[in-house]
Amino acid sequence: MLTEALRRLPGVGPKSAQRMAYHLMQHDRDGAALLSRALSVAVERIHHCAMCNTFTESEVCDTCLDTDRNRALLCVVETPADQLMIEQTLTFKGLYFVLMGRLSPLDGIGPKDIHLDRLIARATDGQVREVVLATNFTNEGEATAHYISETLKARGLEVSRLARGVPVGGELEYIDAGTIARAMLDRRST
Amino acid sequence: MLTEALRRLPGVGPKSAQRMAYHLMQHDRDGAALLSRALSVAVERIHHCAMCNTFTESEVCDTCLDTDRNRALLCVVETPADQLMIEQTLTFKGLYFVLMGRLSPLDGIGPKDIHLDRLIARATDGQVREVVLATNFTNEGEATAHYISETLKARGLEVSRLARGVPVGGELEYIDAGTIARAMLDRRST
Repeated sequence: MLTEALRRLPGVGPKSAQRMAYHLMQHDRDGAALLSRALSVAVERIHHCAMCNTFTESEVCDTCLDTDRNRALLCVVETPADQLMIEQTLTFKGLYFVLMGRLSPLDGIGPKDIHLDRLIARATDGQVREVVLATNFTNEGEATAHYISETLKARGLEVSRLARGVPVGGELEYIDAGTIARAMLDRRST
Repeated sequence: MLTEALRRLPGVGPKSAQRMAYHLMQHDRDGAALLSRALSVAVERIHHCAMCNTFTESEVCDTCLDTDRNRALLCVVETPADQLMIEQTLTFKGLYFVLMGRLSPLDGIGPKDIHLDRLIARATDGQVREVVLATNFTNEGEATAHYISETLKARGLEVSRLARGVPVGGELEYIDAGTIARAMLDRRST
């Protein structure tokens, strides 16, 4: 039963699950108890931030409570991991909205599943001036950005998108034509 | 001696060179003669285009002679391979200047080695309005772009750079912080 349960962890197959179960039972029963408690506490306490929809144990997450942040800027990301990546660049001092997914009609994921109604309410709070779309640059991420952009612009908000172009360190010879095309069309004065 | 000569080909080590030499002498003497002639003809005939500096057998290359191209736009690339990549995107209908290298002070490659005097003469022909810098987004490519930009702007030319940002298909989670930072700073209205 433990082996079966461990297989619910992403990337863990039958062999790994068996090895993990054996290790915990034979060598680390304290670890097993600790993991059990941590999972139980997490299931009980972790829910979505009332403002930005990310995971938090509080009603509103620490980021949204941070009074040093610029409340006129709202960055829309797909996942908490994406938010973390942007935070690490130290280039954005506004707030976030975490979709916890992306539009994916083929998988039956529509506007409701990515909490678009909540995003609209959040973005039209009277304080937000610009919404920065930072969904991924995959087909689904681009479609999601386009859909959100149309929806929010219809409500009079300024909407922007992370720049597309050649990544840092990129050599033209090894970059796809679509990226170079975009970089040429979006070229900037130096 | 043939083995030694074949080692002058990039990426060919002693073993490969020996194998190539054996193959040509044993199984493909016609190929050897053909290669010999091709090399000799190339050495004799191929030189740099008088306008764009790329390799050509004519005085001026076909691209520079193409009267359908926009003579007000000049795109600066490091190599003919980079030019080819941009051509494939069908987004640029101006002319090119091929540096045949990049600034690299550590390797002793200075402005003269990348034909900057010829680029300046070419860009100030009275027809060119905008110079698009499409050197690579490596440290050396960026330094080269910066140097050229300062030089040409001092002569009153408009200078632009391919956009930096997230490549097509890019997922934030797997992209370096420098690229995301640039994409955030250069974000565009949708």
